[in-house]
Amino acid sequence: MDQRLSIVTLGVDDLPRARAFYEALGWRVANEENAGSIVCFTLNGIGFALYPRDRLAEDIGLQGGSGAVTGAVTLAYNVRAREDVATVLDEAEGAGGTIVKAAQDVFWGGHSGYFKDPDGHLWEVAWNPFSPLDDDGNFTW
Amino acid sequence: MDQRLSIVTLGVDDLPRARAFYEALGWRVANEENAGSIVCFTLNGIGFALYPRDRLAEDIGLQGGSGAVTGAVTLAYNVRAREDVATVLDEAEGAGGTIVKAAQDVFWGGHSGYFKDPDGHLWEVAWNPFSPLDDDGNFTW
Repeated sequence: MDQRLSIVTLGVDDLPRARAFYEALGWRVANEENAGSIVCFTLNGIGFALYPRDRLAEDIGLQGGSGAVTGAVTLAYNVRAREDVATVLDEAEGAGGTIVKAAQDVFWGGHSGYFKDPDGHLWEVAWNPFSPLDDDGNFTW
Repeated sequence: MDQRLSIVTLGVDDLPRARAFYEALGWRVANEENAGSIVCFTLNGIGFALYPRDRLAEDIGLQGGSGAVTGAVTLAYNVRAREDVATVLDEAEGAGGTIVKAAQDVFWGGHSGYFKDPDGHLWEVAWNPFSPLDDDGNFTW
């Protein structure tokens, strides 16, 4: 697992309210295409997303709805190839992490899974064919 | 407020355990000097820190100890000048955020404050004279 981070996602209770706040700070949304379901910003080489808390719980595969997402922050580590998702999840498990959701195809056309670090912080490991990493491993929506 | 993020900090219950996990993934600590109190990694233009959850609550100024830090993740936005901390906090308040800790000098020699976004996600706004941003606004420990 390279020493990098691809996306920080904040679980939010009210997507338009959350979007309005970050836009009021002067930030500009990366694209409007899916902005009704997920609001994406490209920062300095990483992505930053606002996503409804209940959908986030669903994406991770947690039962119990929005309350199940501790802190409602996820960190994403994106990989260059589909098969790397399972490899990185295995590596995380070997390092003492817990696989929360095994590598699987996801509705948006990618392949991903989740692990928890020893303190319960959630990392998504994802292959996203629509947003390839650059040569330095930086992510852009 | 420029469209960027400087540091992701995870609050942890056991610092050596947390460090061991990320090192087992192959990550290398940026410096050992303060590693007994905070473990820092330089990622792709952003910093990533492991910090005891109770110290994190203290740093933010939350009463109630470690349980007070929802999710125990903070996002940091670093600025180029000391006086920019208060300016950005004001801007966040104007955008609908809540100032949690006003701009103030901090024990490590910098100047910082915290705001919450509408969903309660914590952002630190910090001036760190020891880790100046590069021309692109990227952060390195």
